[in-house]
Amino acid sequence: MGNLRNPWVLLGILSLSLIPNLVQAEVGSPYAHTCRNKTCVKVERTKLRADETPLSLDVCKLNCNALGALWPKPTGKVELGQEFLSFYPQNVIFRNASAASVEVKATLDEAVKIFREYLLMYHPDYKRDGVSPFPENKEGDNIAQNSLVIDIGTVWDVKNVVLNVDESYVLSLESNNQRNSVSTSIVANTYFGARNALETLSQLIAYDDETNSLKILDRATISDGPVFAYRGVLIDTSRNFIPVESLKRVIDGLSYNKLNMLHWHITDTHSFPFYSKSVPEMTKYGAYSSRKIYSVEEATELVEYARVRGVKIVAEFDAPAHAGNGWEWGPAAGKGEMALCINKEPWSSYCVEPPCGQLNPANENMYQVLGKIYKDLLDIFDNELFHMGGDEVKLDCWLENAEITDYLKKKGKNNTQETLIELWGEFQSKAYNLVKDNQQVKANNVTAIMWTSELASIEHAVQYLPANNYVVQIWTTAQDPVIPFLIKNNYKTIFSNYDAWYLDCGFGAWIGEGNNWCSPYKGWQKVYENSPLQLLSPALTPEEIDAAYKNGQILGGEAPLWAEQVDELTLEGKLFPRLSALAERLWSNPDTNWYAAESRIVQSRHRHVQRGLRPDRLQPEWCHQNEELCYG
Amino acid sequence: MGNLRNPWVLLGILSLSLIPNLVQAEVGSPYAHTCRNKTCVKVERTKLRADETPLSLDVCKLNCNALGALWPKPTGKVELGQEFLSFYPQNVIFRNASAASVEVKATLDEAVKIFREYLLMYHPDYKRDGVSPFPENKEGDNIAQNSLVIDIGTVWDVKNVVLNVDESYVLSLESNNQRNSVSTSIVANTYFGARNALETLSQLIAYDDETNSLKILDRATISDGPVFAYRGVLIDTSRNFIPVESLKRVIDGLSYNKLNMLHWHITDTHSFPFYSKSVPEMTKYGAYSSRKIYSVEEATELVEYARVRGVKIVAEFDAPAHAGNGWEWGPAAGKGEMALCINKEPWSSYCVEPPCGQLNPANENMYQVLGKIYKDLLDIFDNELFHMGGDEVKLDCWLENAEITDYLKKKGKNNTQETLIELWGEFQSKAYNLVKDNQQVKANNVTAIMWTSELASIEHAVQYLPANNYVVQIWTTAQDPVIPFLIKNNYKTIFSNYDAWYLDCGFGAWIGEGNNWCSPYKGWQKVYENSPLQLLSPALTPEEIDAAYKNGQILGGEAPLWAEQVDELTLEGKLFPRLSALAERLWSNPDTNWYAAESRIVQSRHRHVQRGLRPDRLQPEWCHQNEELCYG
Repeated sequence: MGNLRNPWVLLGILSLSLIPNLVQAEVGSPYAHTCRNKTCVKVERTKLRADETPLSLDVCKLNCNALGALWPKPTGKVELGQEFLSFYPQNVIFRNASAASVEVKATLDEAVKIFREYLLMYHPDYKRDGVSPFPENKEGDNIAQNSLVIDIGTVWDVKNVVLNVDESYVLSLESNNQRNSVSTSIVANTYFGARNALETLSQLIAYDDETNSLKILDRATISDGPVFAYRGVLIDTSRNFIPVESLKRVIDGLSYNKLNMLHWHITDTHSFPFYSKSVPEMTKYGAYSSRKIYSVEEATELVEYARVRGVKIVAEFDAPAHAGNGWEWGPAAGKGEMALCINKEPWSSYCVEPPCGQLNPANENMYQVLGKIYKDLLDIFDNELFHMGGDEVKLDCWLENAEITDYLKKKGKNNTQETLIELWGEFQSKAYNLVKDNQQVKANNVTAIMWTSELASIEHAVQYLPANNYVVQIWTTAQDPVIPFLIKNNYKTIFSNYDAWYLDCGFGAWIGEGNNWCSPYKGWQKVYENSPLQLLSPALTPEEIDAAYKNGQILGGEAPLWAEQVDELTLEGKLFPRLSALAERLWSNPDTNWYAAESRIVQSRHRHVQRGLRPDRLQPEWCHQNEELCYG
Repeated sequence: MGNLRNPWVLLGILSLSLIPNLVQAEVGSPYAHTCRNKTCVKVERTKLRADETPLSLDVCKLNCNALGALWPKPTGKVELGQEFLSFYPQNVIFRNASAASVEVKATLDEAVKIFREYLLMYHPDYKRDGVSPFPENKEGDNIAQNSLVIDIGTVWDVKNVVLNVDESYVLSLESNNQRNSVSTSIVANTYFGARNALETLSQLIAYDDETNSLKILDRATISDGPVFAYRGVLIDTSRNFIPVESLKRVIDGLSYNKLNMLHWHITDTHSFPFYSKSVPEMTKYGAYSSRKIYSVEEATELVEYARVRGVKIVAEFDAPAHAGNGWEWGPAAGKGEMALCINKEPWSSYCVEPPCGQLNPANENMYQVLGKIYKDLLDIFDNELFHMGGDEVKLDCWLENAEITDYLKKKGKNNTQETLIELWGEFQSKAYNLVKDNQQVKANNVTAIMWTSELASIEHAVQYLPANNYVVQIWTTAQDPVIPFLIKNNYKTIFSNYDAWYLDCGFGAWIGEGNNWCSPYKGWQKVYENSPLQLLSPALTPEEIDAAYKNGQILGGEAPLWAEQVDELTLEGKLFPRLSALAERLWSNPDTNWYAAESRIVQSRHRHVQRGLRPDRLQPEWCHQNEELCYG
């Protein structure tokens, strides 16, 4: 891991002219930063030693310690140069890969365009209008005479993020003998590795207010690749609608952290915002309003937006529970109901939270509609991974229903808890086949993801959910015995244990009073230290854990942000910077604890702010300016 | 309380032409809202009864229950009409008070301008550019022919929010016999009462998507006034800087809730962002950067911005602790240090959180500078209330200092805990006199506010903090025995007990791991039910509590949002809608619990969103659309 598996593609050559560091006059503050003992310290300018240059904090952070401002930390070799070189962003020249396909060339164009805007964003006066706040090129300004050239070589034609796609890269920076140019070489096997390299490159550059220019390290070598293949977040757009523009901003944030999966919990009992072109009744009845619908065009555009940023959108259609509003129309009289218990009262008898709703597994029309919805989803979203939900079925919703009782009676069965579990298993089997039947890309094998549940349990999983067909996403606590059970029974797993990775915990209750069910709030430190591999110990031996990892059974993890108490107004602050902590756990799987990452995550969060995201604040700015002094 | 004390000023006549309710064709959704049994229910349009009109949710909320969409709930009579009348915002005509002073007229102009924009904001297509998204006036459109006239009568010339300023009003709406106009009469004694009436009036109006117009109640009578005089929030701009534009948005939010105090904790040990024109060294050394300074012009403009919105800015200059960065320059060699322990390590020995810093009470130069800063603050901010801080002095910072030891020795005293308390008392006395000496408006008596502390304690308060000079702000828990002590000893009090009203609690720790010190998060329900009067029981008898209230000793309360983990990016979501819960507690002091207020606070929060604020989400939208069904 972390080493380039097949580093034969030379992706980019990046060269820029350099000038020696300028020591400028004071810019108002009596203080500047400088690097001492691998720490950026704030000192009075008059007390700088003769060999010390006054630096902006951002520039100091680039290389003051062994990992600089890199996030997540690379898994291979990291060597960072000790000198800085100045340039302006307008002097970046990009030459696309001559040997790549038109499609990959276009995607690389996009990635470099995004990279270029990051450089503008580092300037504190950038207005997000595309207009550069840096000095224009003028004669007599040495910095302005430098240029930065990015040459892209050939790239494998991997169109989409797929599980275990090669995301690794080697990034090298080197300055020439005259110290007036630097070459950046990016070696990667896929577009996604190259995009990751560009993200890392952007973390080797910072704005310097001493010279009003950008500074880049004069040399560096970084060899990097992820530990876990699946690194994601869950966004829920059913409890509360989240506009597409906000989802794009979330994807931006994922891309800053090399997170690669957006699990879109698009529907639930509360509302049905996905416009199904085959079944427009779903949004007509189920959307909160006509303004709160995702059109086919919007969803399609979002998939492409994510792809360019190295992110796969994994759509979830949760069933048979967590389906209600939107299902109340049809079928014709006498043919029963497609979903039961919709908004039924008292809700606590029929579901885990209001409003209730559960598909009717005895209703033939439901399966027809379900198949159409699956097809519409699979036409837009990824065909490799598809989330089928499967959590929190409340059998009592089915228990009293005449249609179900009749259905079972015809099979010679009574309506009991155990026959209802069988019925659930039957539903799941039929639904799985509908997914398979309606997948767009027949060449790929759709892998279904299911939540841990009564069906995905020690008692029932092997019977109803063949390990070849299903990935199980674990949302219970780290101590749940189902976790080692699943590994021992050959299931692939995604970790989302709520005691560390549920980002919606810790706020006031929305049902009743006090704090919400999974309180307390999970701080970034807790998120950071939740290691899937460690969770398997001691139930599994180190050898068993290693074998399961190598066998691809521990795909990675995902932090859900359930949206009962979230909408676009506070979404970003609840996600970030905690998703950064998740990202380093899953990309790097560090063997150091949160404390070793603290000053880097604070700097990384600052970079998120520069790029226009709205992350929560972890500390006073004093702690940022005075590294390591806000210790416990 | 709640009845107009002297309702002799007729403030406004508001008349608008009316048309009968239009029942429009379906607008896409099969559902509409209607009012049944005092609850807004979502029903299929085809199932509406003959006597029911399909309503937008916002219109339904206006009068479906006895309190409609009013927040905070009025303290006097509330009568709401059962019919709605349509109008467009462009047809509002305002005639200013002929008898009022030029200054009051100008302020009323501003208040009506703000009110006019609220009307535009209610339209979901409003782009916040001043351009109305409502239909233009056209012949044949009955709604467009109606007009709304606001006539303002005379108003007392009360320039600023002062403690116990009359904020009450009586608001009456009446439609004429032809049902094509309504008159709104606002009766109040001061500008601030009139502004409150306009806020209430705006809560009787909603956008109706059935007719693409605004609807207003055809008649109403509301008599209203606050229970507590002091209703505020604390904003801290030292731990993290908050731009002026964000502070304006907070003030907007206060005005929606009839909160009247913005306690600005402007400086602390971390940074000194207030530009003191007499002592520019303070920001030069103490600001986080030259971009993170409040200029005199900005602060002055903010005071006026707040005044127009019924809010007083109470400036705090915390001392002698919570003062550090910014104080490190001068005086000349041999004259000691103005502040001690600045950024001193290990911080836990010298202060409660990093970085340390405490003024040096033995340093004469410090007092000179302190006097200048007080003058600069009092030139800009309110001269009636001034917060002197006084919390969390750590005597150990002073204990080892030679300057202090020498100073005490000259007075024949040893350097002990008790003599240091005396020294603190001496500092406070000198500082108080400096405030008095430097107040701008000599006619007013500056009332100093102090936090509960070792000085404001059962042991020391009477000796060092005369009850005539000081208001004590209580930040400890509801059980602190100092609370009844202070009341019994004639102190005026402001309640901010952290166990209910600290809005920064419950997030991840910023020192060490786990959750922050005052966890858990205080949900709006907890905020709502924290009653200052109830907190005094059983330590005081009901008669004693009543006497203390009538004697003006229970000024009100304030929710602090300390900013260690807050900046402008997540500020609003941490403040709102919890400040709405605080507002109803302090304006109305309801004898009902949070549950009775739930659907109203959700609607009130929705109105905040319409006005462009970024409050946190309390519930799924389903609960908003399906009132009373998300019960516990």
